[in-house]
Amino acid sequence: MITAPIGIFDSGIGGLTIAKAIRKRLPAESFIYFGDTAHMPYGEKSPQTIREFSSGIAHHLLNSQCKAIVIACNSASATAFEEVRTLCGESVPVINVIDPVIDYIGNFSGIHKIGVIGTRATINSGIYAQKLTEKYPELTIESLATPLFAQMVEEGFYDNSVSREVIRAYLKNDAFREIEALILGCTHYPLLQNDLKDFFWDKVQIIDSPMVVAEELANVILSKGLQSQNQNKTGAFECQVSYLTPTFQKIANTIFGESVELKELDIWKI
Amino acid sequence: MITAPIGIFDSGIGGLTIAKAIRKRLPAESFIYFGDTAHMPYGEKSPQTIREFSSGIAHHLLNSQCKAIVIACNSASATAFEEVRTLCGESVPVINVIDPVIDYIGNFSGIHKIGVIGTRATINSGIYAQKLTEKYPELTIESLATPLFAQMVEEGFYDNSVSREVIRAYLKNDAFREIEALILGCTHYPLLQNDLKDFFWDKVQIIDSPMVVAEELANVILSKGLQSQNQNKTGAFECQVSYLTPTFQKIANTIFGESVELKELDIWKI
Repeated sequence: MITAPIGIFDSGIGGLTIAKAIRKRLPAESFIYFGDTAHMPYGEKSPQTIREFSSGIAHHLLNSQCKAIVIACNSASATAFEEVRTLCGESVPVINVIDPVIDYIGNFSGIHKIGVIGTRATINSGIYAQKLTEKYPELTIESLATPLFAQMVEEGFYDNSVSREVIRAYLKNDAFREIEALILGCTHYPLLQNDLKDFFWDKVQIIDSPMVVAEELANVILSKGLQSQNQNKTGAFECQVSYLTPTFQKIANTIFGESVELKELDIWKI
Repeated sequence: MITAPIGIFDSGIGGLTIAKAIRKRLPAESFIYFGDTAHMPYGEKSPQTIREFSSGIAHHLLNSQCKAIVIACNSASATAFEEVRTLCGESVPVINVIDPVIDYIGNFSGIHKIGVIGTRATINSGIYAQKLTEKYPELTIESLATPLFAQMVEEGFYDNSVSREVIRAYLKNDAFREIEALILGCTHYPLLQNDLKDFFWDKVQIIDSPMVVAEELANVILSKGLQSQNQNKTGAFECQVSYLTPTFQKIANTIFGESVELKELDIWKI
């Protein structure tokens, strides 16, 4: 069991930012990443459909003997967390990408106003605002959909004049003027971290979601005694997608920040 | 029959640029627009899947008594034109968005080098380059995928600093330096016409695909004697989508340039 892999899944390949941070934090572990590129994006799909897809992927990862599952997709985290948890039972812990970030905000005592950006689906769901308000009722929350950011990152436009211009166009509005922290509610956005820091003149704490999620996973793995016994060896990393095109491969390399081999595995047809 | 509607379909709502130009050219006609938002985008789907979806929509439009069909989608035009034509038989003409543009290039005698931009799927398919080379072997063709353009337009970023910066980022490469005309191989791009004219200092002929397609449709309708008998009345315009969200509604208004009411009609579940 404890040499078993950790499963990470996303609607597509954006979750590779999470996978990258997790691999860095837990280098001895083995991983299976599953990106449901045949069905991406999940954002504009019905909750019922997202739950069906997520359960199907969780089944696949459990069949692959995964000892823990990370839902590296905001839409699936918001919609299908309970289903996946029920499927996995007591013995296989499930981590989503939202709750660890909400908890992490508690570490900052001086924050009164916080911004949340994400895809239109994530922002419209109100999931971050709702969870933040529940846990920190004194906090003022400004949410904004920034739909172009994800594809912009996929196109390799970050740390350049395009990303700076697009960030300015979205974030120059007054509502975001006095935020003290910013939650990146989309797995693609960590690649915009430098641009966002520059835009806010380094005065806004950009929450590094992948790092926060990786830390939470590490805590869970350790507390449950699930860590790999081969701590001196780098674990394997298998990256599966339900539909593979050269474009997906290219974007995966961009998002992962290095070459990563995608393998097509259409679990929906098996 | 000749008071019957004209059917226009697209994988999503980008084809509304085509619908707009057609309505302007043939104001007395009635139209049914069908956007397959449940399955969009078609670009990264297999040819077999695109053919199945396109045939399904054509069936639906024929059942709605359409007297002509316009495939207002580059992916479906490139992949499913023959299937749809076979389905429609002799009596219902089918127009795609690629061939009329290829024919139209013949009107310009002074063009030696032409650029084509589109989604990654359209450009990778090589459909424009192949058809241009076949018909005009002396022409030099430069093709470039500009994937961010479509979503940028959907976000309302045109005629502004974002669109200018993104256009510069994609088109500043040397290959495009001496083009004399530019084909917009994506239904969203006509909204970037002004920005593109500015970028090229008005020295490049930007081919207005919606106008060209509308003109071709008008010719076909007239030559086959299919024009509406109510030439003094403005025809109806019904806009159906297979999946409706507030986001799709908002983007449809942006692309259509005015308010357009989308109705959900999931022909896949009927």
